[in-house]
Amino acid sequence: MKQIMHIMAGFVLILSAVYADEGMWTFDNPPGKQLKEKYGFDVTEDWMTHVRLSSVRFNDGGSGSFISPNGLVMTNHHVGLGQIQKLSTQENDFVKNGFYAKTTSAELRCPDLELNVLVEMENVTEKILGTAKEGMTQKEALSARKSKIAELTKESRERTGLRSDIVPFYNGSEYWIYRYKKFTDVRLVMAPEEQIAFFGGDPDNFTFPRYDLDMTFFRVYENDKPYNPPHYLKWKTAGASDGELVFVSGHPGSTNRQQTVSQIEYARDYSYPNRLKNVERRLKVLRDYASRGEEQRRRAVTSIRGIENAQKAWTGEYNGLLDKNVMAKKIKEELNLREAVNANPELKAKFAWAWDSVAAAIERSKMMFKELTFRGVSGKLASNALTIARFAREIKKPNGERTAAFQDANIEATKYSLFSPAPIYPDLEEVQLADRFAEALDMLGSNDPWVKAVLDGKTPQEAAAFYINNTKLGDPAFRKALIEAGEEEITASQDPLIAMARRIVGIGDEMTAWQEKNISGITASASEAAGKARFAVYGKDLPPDATFTLRLSYGTVKVFPMNGTVAPSMTTMYGLYDRAYSFQNQPEFELPQRFKDGVNKVQLATAMNFVTTNDIIGGNSGSPVINKNAEVVGLIFDGNIESLSGRFVYEEARNRAVAVHTAAMIESLRKLYDASLLADEIEGIVTKPEPPKETPLKTVKPATKKKK
Amino acid sequence: MKQIMHIMAGFVLILSAVYADEGMWTFDNPPGKQLKEKYGFDVTEDWMTHVRLSSVRFNDGGSGSFISPNGLVMTNHHVGLGQIQKLSTQENDFVKNGFYAKTTSAELRCPDLELNVLVEMENVTEKILGTAKEGMTQKEALSARKSKIAELTKESRERTGLRSDIVPFYNGSEYWIYRYKKFTDVRLVMAPEEQIAFFGGDPDNFTFPRYDLDMTFFRVYENDKPYNPPHYLKWKTAGASDGELVFVSGHPGSTNRQQTVSQIEYARDYSYPNRLKNVERRLKVLRDYASRGEEQRRRAVTSIRGIENAQKAWTGEYNGLLDKNVMAKKIKEELNLREAVNANPELKAKFAWAWDSVAAAIERSKMMFKELTFRGVSGKLASNALTIARFAREIKKPNGERTAAFQDANIEATKYSLFSPAPIYPDLEEVQLADRFAEALDMLGSNDPWVKAVLDGKTPQEAAAFYINNTKLGDPAFRKALIEAGEEEITASQDPLIAMARRIVGIGDEMTAWQEKNISGITASASEAAGKARFAVYGKDLPPDATFTLRLSYGTVKVFPMNGTVAPSMTTMYGLYDRAYSFQNQPEFELPQRFKDGVNKVQLATAMNFVTTNDIIGGNSGSPVINKNAEVVGLIFDGNIESLSGRFVYEEARNRAVAVHTAAMIESLRKLYDASLLADEIEGIVTKPEPPKETPLKTVKPATKKKK
Repeated sequence: MKQIMHIMAGFVLILSAVYADEGMWTFDNPPGKQLKEKYGFDVTEDWMTHVRLSSVRFNDGGSGSFISPNGLVMTNHHVGLGQIQKLSTQENDFVKNGFYAKTTSAELRCPDLELNVLVEMENVTEKILGTAKEGMTQKEALSARKSKIAELTKESRERTGLRSDIVPFYNGSEYWIYRYKKFTDVRLVMAPEEQIAFFGGDPDNFTFPRYDLDMTFFRVYENDKPYNPPHYLKWKTAGASDGELVFVSGHPGSTNRQQTVSQIEYARDYSYPNRLKNVERRLKVLRDYASRGEEQRRRAVTSIRGIENAQKAWTGEYNGLLDKNVMAKKIKEELNLREAVNANPELKAKFAWAWDSVAAAIERSKMMFKELTFRGVSGKLASNALTIARFAREIKKPNGERTAAFQDANIEATKYSLFSPAPIYPDLEEVQLADRFAEALDMLGSNDPWVKAVLDGKTPQEAAAFYINNTKLGDPAFRKALIEAGEEEITASQDPLIAMARRIVGIGDEMTAWQEKNISGITASASEAAGKARFAVYGKDLPPDATFTLRLSYGTVKVFPMNGTVAPSMTTMYGLYDRAYSFQNQPEFELPQRFKDGVNKVQLATAMNFVTTNDIIGGNSGSPVINKNAEVVGLIFDGNIESLSGRFVYEEARNRAVAVHTAAMIESLRKLYDASLLADEIEGIVTKPEPPKETPLKTVKPATKKKK
Repeated sequence: MKQIMHIMAGFVLILSAVYADEGMWTFDNPPGKQLKEKYGFDVTEDWMTHVRLSSVRFNDGGSGSFISPNGLVMTNHHVGLGQIQKLSTQENDFVKNGFYAKTTSAELRCPDLELNVLVEMENVTEKILGTAKEGMTQKEALSARKSKIAELTKESRERTGLRSDIVPFYNGSEYWIYRYKKFTDVRLVMAPEEQIAFFGGDPDNFTFPRYDLDMTFFRVYENDKPYNPPHYLKWKTAGASDGELVFVSGHPGSTNRQQTVSQIEYARDYSYPNRLKNVERRLKVLRDYASRGEEQRRRAVTSIRGIENAQKAWTGEYNGLLDKNVMAKKIKEELNLREAVNANPELKAKFAWAWDSVAAAIERSKMMFKELTFRGVSGKLASNALTIARFAREIKKPNGERTAAFQDANIEATKYSLFSPAPIYPDLEEVQLADRFAEALDMLGSNDPWVKAVLDGKTPQEAAAFYINNTKLGDPAFRKALIEAGEEEITASQDPLIAMARRIVGIGDEMTAWQEKNISGITASASEAAGKARFAVYGKDLPPDATFTLRLSYGTVKVFPMNGTVAPSMTTMYGLYDRAYSFQNQPEFELPQRFKDGVNKVQLATAMNFVTTNDIIGGNSGSPVINKNAEVVGLIFDGNIESLSGRFVYEEARNRAVAVHTAAMIESLRKLYDASLLADEIEGIVTKPEPPKETPLKTVKPATKKKK
């Protein structure tokens, strides 16, 4: 490898000059050279460790950080929203009205929130890749790797007692065990009104200038006491100035920057157009439901929000793919890499086949596109039924052959989620399921075996109503009892939704098997080869694709061209009121009463939101923005519309991460939320909240179980 | 014609349904049907007359309106800027500091401002078109028409004493005499600081959301007394609400909506790319000059502003032409029209040749593109020299054969401008002229006769320095003396700039003659034919292209999609402060001290700027936005970036006119400018300012002459 690296050195140099602030870097491989050369910053191992151990992963898809010695965790309101909603009732709508616990005893325990802190990273590349022996078929190699992954995961978990995930990087050129300290006793401390957290609503989502107070504070508990993290981030209310170097430490979900051209073309011509059609359909169903009344709106709002969010993101990504320059850049990158591979006999022999192999698999994927896309259910009840039916089939297999969710290492998490006492709304479940059935009928026809199995001679509406009205799966105890009773009981269950799940789970498994054999199995190994080729040519001078693992990105606070003019690098609270009064009572731009009444209490010139060139993507929500001293200067909550094509290409000129300014958080807490105690804790003015009193645990109906 | 109209009626109906709020309508032909059907508004002749007589044309390229019974005229700061600048001195920089005359006696007379009010319109189509006799060559027909125009103009001016312009509409399908009451005693009443009038500077120019107080108030005098206009617009401080029908009455300069596809392709492939290259060059020269010092900046700022403005506008227009959909729409429109023409034998015989004839002329234009583009001078001194040299050649010709500027009807205006006492800055003139010479040398080569004539063996820098340092044309008295001495004196003049002008004026005339014969003469008659064809097919159901004549456009106050979200239909003063503090002291976004200090005096929720769907273009600057009652609700000052392709296509979804809100004007006058008297006059609270006192006329050096 060294010789190749040496040969390519000139090329790599050019790349690093071009790649600007790009990259979501793993914590074992920070971009030290770039930081030194471009910003004169020496990133140390201690700095990296401190930031890593202060970073928190919200396992349902977000990021956060410890910001006090007493386990205070900062994240976005939209990351915490699911929990805030679960803690709300019709009488106490914390989503609408906000929440603040003045004392720890008033903090509310979240029903099913898991937070992780990445405490150890171990490179196990050799162990994993060593499973592939001379003479194995692809399938055998895949299976051997899968077993090894399951084995290592289990071993690690048992030895360390830590959540242990085996994560591939660089398309499988490296494998690491990431060990997490896990927290499930997490309590809500403060959440503003959704109306100010998500000010501007869907219209302003993924845009800047912006005026959102998208923050929520939780506290992590251990043994019923506030947890004292060994590392937490200090706070800087003054924030960062224009042009200042800043970092984002968080958990970007996924990027597709190393996909082959054929994969990206498939995404452009198949996946995105269909996805966008589908979300329009889902949104219609949810909005119709939400329009039935205030309570329905409350129930559906998180899902609507999520789908609107996805819709805008996908539209932006899709537009990125339709941009000929983006596509030309991708094509050129791939050509360059393939030329470098072909120029070296060893690399050519090992990797040159990869791109055409992916292309062939993509062609097969097009054949089964409809089945792969439209055979699916909606709603928690149907999903739970499928999990239970699949449990019966999977649990009897050897650990290494099971689907990931049912392997020993994950089964506990799967059950935790399955047994969640969070409320389920049958009327909502029914309309969602009916629509999915109707769509499948439209797209696949009435003779499709899966369609036959779900409809069972009924219309989509009848079938959905029948299942939802007659299932007992709404009761967490029933779900738990079924799982605990085991395979036989599940197979014998007369519950109509379980029966339906039993009928389709086989069809799904068949489809999965076909897909694995003809598509994903091949693209997995071919992508691995392409990734290894890239790794052989460029090494770790380029960061790997995002995988919802902890990453560090760097950048600066910076203006960008927008709407024919320039967007400022920050906004102020003046702008919040401007946008509110400009839209004169339109719901998305309505201020909470607290903000209307409090206009004269706040300093209107206080910085509200700001943008940076940091390379982030979905999953980074809730990430702290920190300065060179690892002080919090902001809270990531979004990217601008131009950042959406960042899934495929990062473009420093226009790609911006959007963050809440620390000044806005403190100003609001002190002046509008009567939350000076919390502000004091955040700013480090007091370092200990008073100890929790009696009944430290407040849960809400219908949460019937307490979990550790 | 009636039969054709009848045949096409169905088609026309479809068109009017499609064309939405499009159109800059002449006052003889308001869009009554559209207003009635779409908005239920009955536009009456009285209403039209009232609005027309309240509208004012600023002859140097803008619009305005009478807004008080005492001749108060409202326009934009950027329309008045040239005059404000001429009234300023180093000691009294009204551009920078603003100006307010508390009494009429403090009002400052503008050195060379002419305002026009359109008092009469007479259709002279038959008289003009009747000059074309059977058997005439094209040249003879053109010449006959030209003579007729000169004759009618002169006759009208002499008979009525009014400025009389003959204006073609519908590509020459109609000709009208527009008679204007003319005012040259116009005095500055109030101008805010340029910094707030043009807040956001070039970055925000042509965009919205916006926060500009782009207003200036003049007063028209007659016989040294405030003029009492028979019509003026009443005022409505509350403005217009979202969705409300509003009108703009003003003077759009020009549109190219009826150009043929070959003309538009020429614009796309030749004119715009070159223009944009040229303005970059001009800007560099001016900015280098402005960077020499504060006084140089002050001198160059209007020109820089104007060119930056043009640059952004042209970039937007050019981008419009590069948009395939825009081009496809134009191609389709032309195809439809040509099909309709070909389907009718009479129309086919008369007009079918037109499009190919234009295309052939365009091809010839490409051959002479460089000569037509780069043979030109810059600066006032060189322009004045050319005017004087040309005067000597033209004045001896019969009136009808002279270039328009030297015809009896226009000679007075030409002299008025030539003799203007406005200051000329030789150092600025020199760098501008040197750059034009250098550019011509680059593009045309040293053997080009025009280049030879201007350089006269010197380098561009040497030549420019020689001319500017040795000419006496900086003195208005010298210019006047030369003209009054007449042809012989001019021909004998040893002034080096006059000598140069004599050398090139012949080359210019030759080029003009060639161009007239091979291009403009042909495109004029062919465009006339295409326009007549269009007129024959659609009649006056479609409005004619803009020609800097008074037009009425209608539309509504309306949001539009922007930056991935929605732009509000109005902004507030909160937003002004937001943008200022967001950019932290960047010069374009710096607030005048008055606004910084006065933040607590104003109601921040006051509406600042707003947008409407009205179809406007450059020249409409300063137009009043009025409601159904003809009350002023705003002051047009710009269009959004998407409106720029409106030169070729109007698109209601995104095209927006941008206006100052009446509330912002009154709020600022009362709370920040200590100008309650003026606000009272505007709002109609007092109807008479006190009579002018002694020395009513304040002019500034170097204004040596008083003009009526």
